[in-house]
Amino acid sequence: MRILGIDPGTAIMGFGLIDAQAGRLSALAYGVWRTAPELPMERRLLALFTEVEACAGLYQPEEAAVEELFMGRNTTTAITVGQARGVALLAAARREIPVYEYTPLQVKQAVVGYGRADKQQIQFMVRALLSLKETPRPDDAADALAVAICHAHSRRLAH
Amino acid sequence: MRILGIDPGTAIMGFGLIDAQAGRLSALAYGVWRTAPELPMERRLLALFTEVEACAGLYQPEEAAVEELFMGRNTTTAITVGQARGVALLAAARREIPVYEYTPLQVKQAVVGYGRADKQQIQFMVRALLSLKETPRPDDAADALAVAICHAHSRRLAH
Repeated sequence: MRILGIDPGTAIMGFGLIDAQAGRLSALAYGVWRTAPELPMERRLLALFTEVEACAGLYQPEEAAVEELFMGRNTTTAITVGQARGVALLAAARREIPVYEYTPLQVKQAVVGYGRADKQQIQFMVRALLSLKETPRPDDAADALAVAICHAHSRRLAH
Repeated sequence: MRILGIDPGTAIMGFGLIDAQAGRLSALAYGVWRTAPELPMERRLLALFTEVEACAGLYQPEEAAVEELFMGRNTTTAITVGQARGVALLAAARREIPVYEYTPLQVKQAVVGYGRADKQQIQFMVRALLSLKETPRPDDAADALAVAICHAHSRRLAH
C-alpha cells in the first residue's frame, strides 16, 4: 500500500510517499515544493497542482492523507492554506485516489503516541519509523511523512 | 471583453459571464453550481473544477474576477471556501485566464456606488446594469455578476 502524505501550503507544500507492507514502513520519496511569492496566486496554485499530479503519476499512491489544520484565528492564512489544500485534493480526485483527513492530535498520537508531542519528537519518530539515516527536513516534509504514517496505522487498526 | 465572475463556495458556487463593449455591459450566462454534501470533499472539488473548466471552455472569457471574501473569525469556513476558491483559480490558470481580486467594498462601490450597499441594492443594480428582465438569483449568481461588473469598471478606469 503506497500512501501519499501532503502538508498543504502556498509558499511551501510538503510531500511524503511511504510504502506500508505488513506493518513495515519505508519512505519512497519526500520533500517540499516551493512557489515564488512574486507569481500571481493562480500561477502558484497551478505550479503546486502540477507537482502533485506529477508525483501521483510517478509513484501511483493508492491513498492520500492530509492534515486537518488548526489555523488559530487568522482567516487570511486559512483561505490561503485552503486554496493550496484544494488543488492538492483535486489532483488526488482526478486520479481517483481517496483522501483521508487527520487532526494534528491524531497524527501526533499515531506517530509519537502522545498528543502534545513537539516538532522535534515528531521528526525523531518519523525518522525512526521509516529507518531514515537523516532527519527529514524541512518540517513540512516531516509533517507530510507523519500524516502518511498516521494513515498507515489507522488502516492497520481498521482491518 | 468577456469576463467571468466567480463567487466561490463548496456547497454552492456562483458564476456570471458578462461582455463589456465600450462601456455597455451584457450578461452571457449566470447561475450556480451545487455539490452534494454527502460526497467526499475531493469529489466535490473535482465537480466544481470540472464545471469551471467547462464554462471557461464554452465561453472563452479573457479575464476572471473573484471576490476577496471577508470571513469573520470562522477559520473552518475560511479553509472550506479557500479550497473551492483554489480550484476555481486553478481552472482559470490552466486556460491562462488572468484572475483579478476585489474586496467586497470595491465590488459595492463599483456596482452601487456605495460601500455599505446591501444584498438587495446589489441585486437591483446588477439587474439594471445588465438590462436583465429578472433579478438574478440566488445571491451567489448575483454576487458573481457583481464582481464581473466591478472588474469591467476597473478596466475602463485603468485604460
